[in-house]
Amino acid sequence: MTTEVVLNVEMACSGCSGAVERVLKKMAGVQTFDVSLEKQRVVVRGDVTPEAVLETVRKTGKKAELAK
Amino acid sequence: MTTEVVLNVEMACSGCSGAVERVLKKMAGVQTFDVSLEKQRVVVRGDVTPEAVLETVRKTGKKAELAK
Repeated sequence: MTTEVVLNVEMACSGCSGAVERVLKKMAGVQTFDVSLEKQRVVVRGDVTPEAVLETVRKTGKKAELAK
Repeated sequence: MTTEVVLNVEMACSGCSGAVERVLKKMAGVQTFDVSLEKQRVVVRGDVTPEAVLETVRKTGKKAELAK
């Protein structure tokens, strides 16, 4: 099953967004993702739950919340 | 027992270093820490192992290695 999860994530620079990209690359179940520094937004698609994606992104130390 | 662990960590901005600070604040056993964006260096003191500190900091998605 493919779920789309959208998060609002505070990212200040490309080092911040790159860190989020690195953890999503390693996350089980993730098929595709987009990390937008400009929109402060992360979209993840895959066999994942919103809670698991939120927890993974929060482990980066960034402030994150579900956008929907 | 108090151990001092020193890591070299790639951090590009205060958002990056702030993220590292947030995960260290939550880490069990940590007594004090210094995160230097200027020196690209993180020093952690507490009842911790170098491996555990390295793993925690790497979960932020930052590139990190033990400095000693």
